Amino acid sequence: MKTFQVELKKVVDDSYEVQIGKDLIRDLVEDLKNGLLNGIKKFAVITDSNVAPLYGEPVCEAIKKAGFLAELFVFPAGEKSKVRKTKEELEDAMLQKGFRRDCAVIAVGGGVVTDLAGFVAGTFGRGVPVVNYATSNLAAADASIGGKTAVDTDLATNLIGLIYQPKKVYVDIATWKTLPMEHRINGLAETVKHACLADYELFCYLEDHTEEILNCKEEECVYISEHNCMVKYQVVMKDEKEKNLREILNLGHTVGRAIETVSGYQLLHGQAVSIGLMAQARLGVQLGFMTEEELLRLERLLVKIGLPVTIPSYINKEELIQKLYTDKKVRDGKLRFVFEKGIGEVMTFGEEVYARPTAEEEIRAIIEEM
Amino acid sequence: MKTFQVELKKVVDDSYEVQIGKDLIRDLVEDLKNGLLNGIKKFAVITDSNVAPLYGEPVCEAIKKAGFLAELFVFPAGEKSKVRKTKEELEDAMLQKGFRRDCAVIAVGGGVVTDLAGFVAGTFGRGVPVVNYATSNLAAADASIGGKTAVDTDLATNLIGLIYQPKKVYVDIATWKTLPMEHRINGLAETVKHACLADYELFCYLEDHTEEILNCKEEECVYISEHNCMVKYQVVMKDEKEKNLREILNLGHTVGRAIETVSGYQLLHGQAVSIGLMAQARLGVQLGFMTEEELLRLERLLVKIGLPVTIPSYINKEELIQKLYTDKKVRDGKLRFVFEKGIGEVMTFGEEVYARPTAEEEIRAIIEEM
Repeated sequence: MKTFQVELKKVVDDSYEVQIGKDLIRDLVEDLKNGLLNGIKKFAVITDSNVAPLYGEPVCEAIKKAGFLAELFVFPAGEKSKVRKTKEELEDAMLQKGFRRDCAVIAVGGGVVTDLAGFVAGTFGRGVPVVNYATSNLAAADASIGGKTAVDTDLATNLIGLIYQPKKVYVDIATWKTLPMEHRINGLAETVKHACLADYELFCYLEDHTEEILNCKEEECVYISEHNCMVKYQVVMKDEKEKNLREILNLGHTVGRAIETVSGYQLLHGQAVSIGLMAQARLGVQLGFMTEEELLRLERLLVKIGLPVTIPSYINKEELIQKLYTDKKVRDGKLRFVFEKGIGEVMTFGEEVYARPTAEEEIRAIIEEM
Repeated sequence: MKTFQVELKKVVDDSYEVQIGKDLIRDLVEDLKNGLLNGIKKFAVITDSNVAPLYGEPVCEAIKKAGFLAELFVFPAGEKSKVRKTKEELEDAMLQKGFRRDCAVIAVGGGVVTDLAGFVAGTFGRGVPVVNYATSNLAAADASIGGKTAVDTDLATNLIGLIYQPKKVYVDIATWKTLPMEHRINGLAETVKHACLADYELFCYLEDHTEEILNCKEEECVYISEHNCMVKYQVVMKDEKEKNLREILNLGHTVGRAIETVSGYQLLHGQAVSIGLMAQARLGVQLGFMTEEELLRLERLLVKIGLPVTIPSYINKEELIQKLYTDKKVRDGKLRFVFEKGIGEVMTFGEEVYARPTAEEEIRAIIEEM
């Protein structure tokens, strides 16, 4: 009997920059020329069928014009593409075009694109660099920080994937104008969530600049993008030390995710989160975690943005309550909710516990009156 | 325009232990009880159809007997299973059985099992811990160190995968007895390769203890397993600083991999590598990198082990020469070979270059006379 010790302790530096501004394709190309990706000359531009003509092709063309090799890989737009089959098709297409270990991936699009393309990059040649060019406010709020990539399966969402950090993220605010208004509104729900859980200043800013943000005014959009990054970064970084802190990013998501599913995806993710935020706030008022006034203030902001604050009549409430039990925070069969403490902070329950065990009757009563 | 800096510099400790000995199932279970995997209580034991009755089931049973939850997941034995479809089926089976983020994977088997199960573990729930229980001398020599996991696709071998370190590796020498003699012999080719490229002492030991090793004597098998770990560890670790050093693990693999493919996999991997080692040594003698005597010594050892040293007559030599160009060391259309310097060292060609550009005529002459 022998043992052999494999020492693999090392300093890893995954730091990167998020650049927030308008029309950043030129900046991306300049960065590539200046060695952002250490002399890589071959780029797989991955995008979806909606984004391809708007930004995928221009990004690809600009990279080629700079003297690099680039190919565009397009998959059908929509959540349904976020599956292993699409990943496989992208990999095969890249191999077919001669891509091997010496390439990099440029993900151009919203959350589905960055989730999927990041996962492709993370396992192609055992990991090639990826750069995200985010073309929606939702991707900017959600996908810029954290490095989470994943696909869905029939049995679980986001369960097959990787934590894989991009080399740089570009948040191109000019792209938001090309989103239908419904999607601009939808994307803001995660920003409201971030404000609620950690950034009172952002909450006030959203109240005061709703119009400008929805109309894609540069200064205001840069402001919220930066604050989104800050909130998420602080939570994700702190979570390395403080166990479970990441749970607070689930604010509004217990009811939110369940209602999204029960609606058969008639509700967009942000709309569902908005209803979820209202549900936790209402319950929070009953439990003494926030005042009636703060609840009204949250409701007013969501309504002003154009987000729903009540449960649509077509939702089967019994089914919704049962669906709550598929939430990842459920422990030993018991529901657990993250709660706001007033506006701009979250409640803790004992040491390093951010989600409170919640009796079914408590949330049932709220759901029934909504 | 704003930029937001995401600071992600940190110390990562992926160190782990390789335990080499006989009948290590009890040690594995003790380690799990003693918190090797930080209190994880749910284990997916992944194995292939050959290994399942011999070791997969016993491992699974032993874990259950210790009071943990364990399920056995079996895929059809053979290289053909090392594909994305098998990975998907394993994931779905795990999800179906209720496995989520709070589990760990125990890989029980040879190289195909550890490659595949390691990849499954690396992306399940964005990464759950994996432990390797290696049941072949090839897996012990090859898969214990380096953390490489991968699957094959029609267009490329080992290109989709991850570097993902196990939490511990068990090299159970008792399992080698259950391998047919042909496979015991086959597995030794990588050990000879390690001896040739970095361990003269191991080379002499192999000459002196061929019989004992092939008959699975404990002391001798522990010795070679430990030396295999040492060689591979030194190369992989040094490679972090010394660019391209990993290339030396390709000794004998330029001709080896090509002949394996051209034989339609009639030749086992180790047999093909043995022929490849002879090809580079013969060319090395011509180029003055080793003596005629050293070549004969290598040939005698390979023959003593039972490995082939000439090209079988059914191999189409022209096809073999063309196949050399699919080698991953090919650069700008030129073949590149790693060469031994005598026995126990490799040649360098300029700074940090281990593979020498080699004219087709040079290797063609060798292949024709073999």
